[in-house]
Amino acid sequence: MTIKVGIVGYGNLGRGVELALAQNPDMQLCAVFSRRDPAGVKLLNAAVPVVPFAQVQEWKDKLDVLVLCGGSATDLPTQTPQLAQYFNVVDSFDTHAHIPAHFDAVDAAARAGKKTGMISVGWDPGLFSLNRLYAQAVLPQGKQYTFWGKGISQGHSDAIRRIPGVKDAKQYTIPVPAALDSVRGGENPALSTRQKHTRECFVVLKEGADAAEVERQIKTMPNYFSDYDTTVHFISQQELNEKHSGMPHGGFVFASAATGKEGEHKQLIEYNLKLDSNPEFTASVLVAYARAAVRLNAEGQYGCKTVFDVPPAYLSAKDGASLRKELL
Amino acid sequence: MTIKVGIVGYGNLGRGVELALAQNPDMQLCAVFSRRDPAGVKLLNAAVPVVPFAQVQEWKDKLDVLVLCGGSATDLPTQTPQLAQYFNVVDSFDTHAHIPAHFDAVDAAARAGKKTGMISVGWDPGLFSLNRLYAQAVLPQGKQYTFWGKGISQGHSDAIRRIPGVKDAKQYTIPVPAALDSVRGGENPALSTRQKHTRECFVVLKEGADAAEVERQIKTMPNYFSDYDTTVHFISQQELNEKHSGMPHGGFVFASAATGKEGEHKQLIEYNLKLDSNPEFTASVLVAYARAAVRLNAEGQYGCKTVFDVPPAYLSAKDGASLRKELL
Repeated sequence: MTIKVGIVGYGNLGRGVELALAQNPDMQLCAVFSRRDPAGVKLLNAAVPVVPFAQVQEWKDKLDVLVLCGGSATDLPTQTPQLAQYFNVVDSFDTHAHIPAHFDAVDAAARAGKKTGMISVGWDPGLFSLNRLYAQAVLPQGKQYTFWGKGISQGHSDAIRRIPGVKDAKQYTIPVPAALDSVRGGENPALSTRQKHTRECFVVLKEGADAAEVERQIKTMPNYFSDYDTTVHFISQQELNEKHSGMPHGGFVFASAATGKEGEHKQLIEYNLKLDSNPEFTASVLVAYARAAVRLNAEGQYGCKTVFDVPPAYLSAKDGASLRKELL
Repeated sequence: MTIKVGIVGYGNLGRGVELALAQNPDMQLCAVFSRRDPAGVKLLNAAVPVVPFAQVQEWKDKLDVLVLCGGSATDLPTQTPQLAQYFNVVDSFDTHAHIPAHFDAVDAAARAGKKTGMISVGWDPGLFSLNRLYAQAVLPQGKQYTFWGKGISQGHSDAIRRIPGVKDAKQYTIPVPAALDSVRGGENPALSTRQKHTRECFVVLKEGADAAEVERQIKTMPNYFSDYDTTVHFISQQELNEKHSGMPHGGFVFASAATGKEGEHKQLIEYNLKLDSNPEFTASVLVAYARAAVRLNAEGQYGCKTVFDVPPAYLSAKDGASLRKELL
């Protein structure tokens, strides 16, 4: 039986979900909901209807699950609880400090509607979180490290663009190679913020802007840049478009521990991602968990769930016997 | 409430479980069961009783879970189903072709006794299987690769020791660096057995043995060596003991896929392990799944389970809210 899916929001992530669904023959995209004028939203598959977001409730008996592709700052905190009353939903909410409140809001709404709401799905939070959990469960006395990059940070790029005199900008987060080597070598280093990542900025100036002042403002910006070794390159809009328009990302999760009577045996777990397209990969994770949300709901597992609550087999279109035969 | 654990079989793996339990304050080792004379079994913690295996059933109301540390060839096929009638159990059964039959036998026994039996727990099968499943669910059109090593293969070492004229031997399985590089580079290569791994053998000869003939027999041994580039070193027993008495292992699971409208974006997932002690790491995984088996059983989830069936949160001693706060 095909799983009927709706997408809410059609930006880079929503488009990634459309692409990912096309790689999963057991799932079908039935509608895209948008707050924009539907005439202006061009899907890859023109046969799928684009529906005004205001009409989403009319689809509540026509869809098995909604994949929510809005942003964590303003869209998801209201959309996910609102929609979880009527639909099984999956979102990629990634504002870490607000996850407990988001969980509670989605849990109450989903329980009231006997629906299943999966939150904070993607790679971090998501697959990276899973790797931190598995590693900590297996090596409870170990030390864990997460590195991000090399990749484009949307939030840091936006922060640069808000500086007066800046026309456009992209920011790469880059793990420090010496820090990676030290962790891989089992040295269990204590690493400061500065020792873990560097930041590299490609900036297009407006005409007449003061380059030195822009660079100073970037490098001294609290939280975003002041705790990091930051490099600033001024380039043309053409070069930015040609060389920095992709959305690559990735990163590393390490767990390092000692076992044995005297702690004489080092054990190292490494998980890493190298992604040419961050939104398309995140979308692929969302789609796998959309399948799981439908299954959990069919079993009566209502309320809010995260990746920690989902038996891995629920993510796959294959049955248990096939999974044991092919992958165990 | 402390989880009361018994260990069946006290070799390298059983000893590893004793060590791992000491790193998990919510669990307590209550007894070790052995077919050997208990007087000859020396635990790290002498306060824990060593009990003849024949008396294991008398402990059925005193333990929450048994960790079975016998071998897959002869011990586990009978022990796991036998004990799963009376106890929650976890084993590391790793004879891949026989997993379906083992699953069925354990499932029937555990259901009859309202117990939970976790099979094929460790790193392969185990954590590697999980990574294959997660990667395939997220990137269903991708290609997957598993490499093992560098590490000691017990089965291959044993095979060499059975050759006439061989006194002792250790065999290392080694991934081919060029193959790893090609997969990491997203080239999606088709790799033959020979292109994926090499085998390096350290052999101690009996006095008067014919080195050339031993080397020929190793290199032409079907299944074990004939499909691989194999190197044979003859060394003294002293050198073998000094340099090759550890039990290191590890390996890599890769998933490589293309996403995007034209498949223009490469996405690469890598999971790798570098283990100084294979049995101690496997034991650490067994202990985390012993905790999960007890929880599944308390919920009424009877029968045989694998790593694919266990929600990750069940592996941790922490509650859901703590996990979401600390690891999500």
